[in-house]
Amino acid sequence: MMKAAFYEGNRTIRVGEGLSVPPRTGEVQIEVSHAGICGTDLHIFHGHMDKRVSFPHVMGHEMSGVIHALGEGVTGYGVGDRVTVMPLSPCGQCPACSAGHNHICQNLKFLGIETPGAFQSLWTVPAFTLHRLPDSLSLEHGAMIEPLAVACHDVRIGEVTSGEYIVVLGGGPIGMLIALVAREAGAKVLISEINPFRLELAKALGLDTINPKEADIVEYVNKQTGMAGADVVFEVTSSAAGAEVMTRLPRTRGRIVVVGIFTQPPKVDLHRFFWRELKMSGARVYEHEDFEKAIQLSASGQLPLDRLITEIYPLERLEEGFRQMESGSSVMKILLKCS
Amino acid sequence: MMKAAFYEGNRTIRVGEGLSVPPRTGEVQIEVSHAGICGTDLHIFHGHMDKRVSFPHVMGHEMSGVIHALGEGVTGYGVGDRVTVMPLSPCGQCPACSAGHNHICQNLKFLGIETPGAFQSLWTVPAFTLHRLPDSLSLEHGAMIEPLAVACHDVRIGEVTSGEYIVVLGGGPIGMLIALVAREAGAKVLISEINPFRLELAKALGLDTINPKEADIVEYVNKQTGMAGADVVFEVTSSAAGAEVMTRLPRTRGRIVVVGIFTQPPKVDLHRFFWRELKMSGARVYEHEDFEKAIQLSASGQLPLDRLITEIYPLERLEEGFRQMESGSSVMKILLKCS
Ligand SMILES: [Zn+2]
Ligand SMILES: [Zn+2]
Ligand SMILES: [Zn+2]
Ligand SMILES: [Zn+2]
Repeated sequence: MMKAAFYEGNRTIRVGEGLSVPPRTGEVQIEVSHAGICGTDLHIFHGHMDKRVSFPHVMGHEMSGVIHALGEGVTGYGVGDRVTVMPLSPCGQCPACSAGHNHICQNLKFLGIETPGAFQSLWTVPAFTLHRLPDSLSLEHGAMIEPLAVACHDVRIGEVTSGEYIVVLGGGPIGMLIALVAREAGAKVLISEINPFRLELAKALGLDTINPKEADIVEYVNKQTGMAGADVVFEVTSSAAGAEVMTRLPRTRGRIVVVGIFTQPPKVDLHRFFWRELKMSGARVYEHEDFEKAIQLSASGQLPLDRLITEIYPLERLEEGFRQMESGSSVMKILLKCS
Repeated sequence: MMKAAFYEGNRTIRVGEGLSVPPRTGEVQIEVSHAGICGTDLHIFHGHMDKRVSFPHVMGHEMSGVIHALGEGVTGYGVGDRVTVMPLSPCGQCPACSAGHNHICQNLKFLGIETPGAFQSLWTVPAFTLHRLPDSLSLEHGAMIEPLAVACHDVRIGEVTSGEYIVVLGGGPIGMLIALVAREAGAKVLISEINPFRLELAKALGLDTINPKEADIVEYVNKQTGMAGADVVFEVTSSAAGAEVMTRLPRTRGRIVVVGIFTQPPKVDLHRFFWRELKMSGARVYEHEDFEKAIQLSASGQLPLDRLITEIYPLERLEEGFRQMESGSSVMKILLKCS
């Protein structure tokens, strides 16, 4: 049976028979193997994005699968190919697209938000979104490529180089992946996190950690860097506390990367920007090269992706997955088996 | 008579006989010709920097003059040479200095704040602060080199290139100089300002202007840029309103340069940083190359520096100058004749 998980509003998920959408010209239909539950999906579940979705809505944008059918005009791929999807559909015409920034197109459609997503057995998407998964990469790890590409993009925007001292504020899935990618780039990494499960996991992965409620992170970073400060700080908490401390950590001309999605403008110490000539960049989603980098990194086997996948549930247990994420305990990345 | 203007605290200036400080090894004594009054001096006058100065304090750091005496070991300069001073004394040892950022040294002394300044007939400074003024440059314009170097630094940090669309928030002396330097670099420039005198002056200099209390600046900039947004925004107002609008103006991957000195952390829309992948840099003072650029630009005669110098007063009228700056009317840059 073709099944799908439908968000029906009001924190309600119904799993039932889905609708198989035959691929049109330039599209492919994928049999979804695994799909990760993202913080964004939880956000949709909480009703915060009801204006961007149409009901009933199928979420999901982190996935792996096998091509099931090809629309007309699709070249370079065949039925049975193992793929993942870069879930962006840019307009191609706006000033951002014209400037070559089509991943942040001014009319961007995000697959799984503005269009149906991957929490179903068969998912039809434009072929230009596809990235091939190497045989050496499991389909479980293939479902980690999208969040890993976010991390690759963030680290690239942060211009992290070997030997640099990096602080990641927030040790959720994206923060953890940023830390691992930065470490692969040769950086020394500190993760700041308050959740005990996440702290333990980060330690188990060999990352340096600090709980900013228990120790003075500014003092710690200054001590670790000979009073210079951090080279790059990644803000992944979306919290007022994160926005406050992020400016106190970097060295002169150090960098801050804003990864967290702030729903309210926090106070930011612009005097510190002036005083230390800090630089800050926002980083949003990814470009194709970040997907390629993520695939290459995960295929290398050097990243402990298995340790980040804390559960693999059948699609039917999506709502249970959300509840577990809400509880915040013992959870990093939950994958759904969709077919 | 060697005279000096002394700040004695409590908004009090006394002009009286100064103390001639013979130059020690590596120092020169300059007969100060002209010295500009800076917003920072007004800030000192208002008592906001009483913790950084020692009483009675001689302010002033924007100046031109002629070398009066040389200390031992000073080479490359002679008595009678026309010079200006880059008023920075870095420690040479801190992490910032070691990283080559000695203009933002972690123990920086600013001449005229942590040490006596230029509001006196004879000023003794380290020879490493000197920049030679070409014969074609008047001593009046020579006193404009320091603020012009600030503007050159800001434009350099903003990486302004020819053809770009630039918004300068705030049309005081620094904002105006940033606009002129960016225009020299080939940029299209819009100045946002609410003071009628400044708006008129900017118009008279051929700059595009907007009063954000009378027109919607976001709409205007979008219209001017084909809905793309500005390439670079310079925040020179140090106001909550400036911090609010600065994130709404840039294009995708556009840049913001924080020039204004914020005494309180304002709210900043970090979501916009994420959404458009904006970049923001703080810019503080200048480096030697900015001084050289400022000297070259002003010597070229292409900048309307005369129009920015609204008064030239004898040193005795410093306090009157402050009062005029406080009133905000009909004032851009006031120079003092110091000898
Ligand atoms: Zn996601
Ligand atoms: Zn577009
Ligand atoms: Zn100044
Ligand atoms: Zn130093």
